[in-house]
Amino acid sequence: MAKHDIPGIVIGRLPIYLRAIHRMAQEGQRVTSSQELGKRLGVSAAQIRKDLSQFGEFGKQGTGYNIKYLSQQLRRILNLDVVWGMAIVGAGDVGSALAHYQGFRDRGFEATMIFDNDPEKVGERIGALIVQDLANLGEAIHEGKIKVAMVATPADHAQEVTDQLVEAGIKAILNYAPIQITVPEGVRVEYIDPATHLQKMSYYLK
Amino acid sequence: MAKHDIPGIVIGRLPIYLRAIHRMAQEGQRVTSSQELGKRLGVSAAQIRKDLSQFGEFGKQGTGYNIKYLSQQLRRILNLDVVWGMAIVGAGDVGSALAHYQGFRDRGFEATMIFDNDPEKVGERIGALIVQDLANLGEAIHEGKIKVAMVATPADHAQEVTDQLVEAGIKAILNYAPIQITVPEGVRVEYIDPATHLQKMSYYLK
Repeated sequence: MAKHDIPGIVIGRLPIYLRAIHRMAQEGQRVTSSQELGKRLGVSAAQIRKDLSQFGEFGKQGTGYNIKYLSQQLRRILNLDVVWGMAIVGAGDVGSALAHYQGFRDRGFEATMIFDNDPEKVGERIGALIVQDLANLGEAIHEGKIKVAMVATPADHAQEVTDQLVEAGIKAILNYAPIQITVPEGVRVEYIDPATHLQKMSYYLK
Repeated sequence: MAKHDIPGIVIGRLPIYLRAIHRMAQEGQRVTSSQELGKRLGVSAAQIRKDLSQFGEFGKQGTGYNIKYLSQQLRRILNLDVVWGMAIVGAGDVGSALAHYQGFRDRGFEATMIFDNDPEKVGERIGALIVQDLANLGEAIHEGKIKVAMVATPADHAQEVTDQLVEAGIKAILNYAPIQITVPEGVRVEYIDPATHLQKMSYYLK
């Protein structure tokens, strides 16, 4: 099946499966089943089997999945056999937390540069990174062959920064600014906006 | 229509609509249409009309939506006519960033307490909050009548902390720990895990 024929919603579940079996491996487990995985994730075993079957045959009827093998295969499918360098734009609280965040590296990503337009922040050290001037963004991303970026600017600047990132060759953007951004075909955007998740839950409160 | 009869996926889109029309209001706009809103959000006008129609009649054929009125109505539907106090558990980088985050207040939420089990962090000031001992969690949440919490602990502690939060009366949890957590019926969980979003996009890279 061609890459773009598999629905995005299926692709979106693979990282969740990978996270769960990685956890099982940490707990010392070697084999799992679609039933067990489904129970842990609150989805049906049938859905897991159907999702995985789009990419090949990863387990045998009756013996389940070998966790190490399934983990390798999911990482290969998701292009995680390399570590993707990432640019962070915005060195405020969110950008700083992302620069410090330890959870990316063993999941295939690493923040390798951070930019801000505030002269007071440029040159400052945040974790392992030195804040660079936003004016250098295009050149640094191009030279570093960076394909992935995280936008952590105020909403007002997010679209402008996105345009610069796309121009510099970025193909995947994780947007923390609470605003919808527009990108050309061939560039992916995902959103992290905690308030939308909270508002979804507050509907059910009271 | 009863509260639980409306699909969760529809409820999940309301905060996105609210965010977009709030943005339009900031830009000085007073009226919008399902076409314009759909274009901005990359969804169909028909879907927006269908979603909103589940809650009432918010616009007139041909004249569109009054932004101020639609915004008020969405806030009412999502129970955002009050500000919900929130507890943060974990005063590491993620918890600290959440304590500093300025984007909650005008969207209906405010972090009012933060907890950690590290004696070195207890008593420390983070933004407007003082880190409290995790041992006080139950009492403080109960006394503060807090219903919403954010979990920002390492994965290993997330389930244990979740159990304590539920015991203390929390009904909505935004979980930043990269692990699936289990809650009883009647408690809601949403997840924020940047690596899963990045992995979903890396599938399309290369």
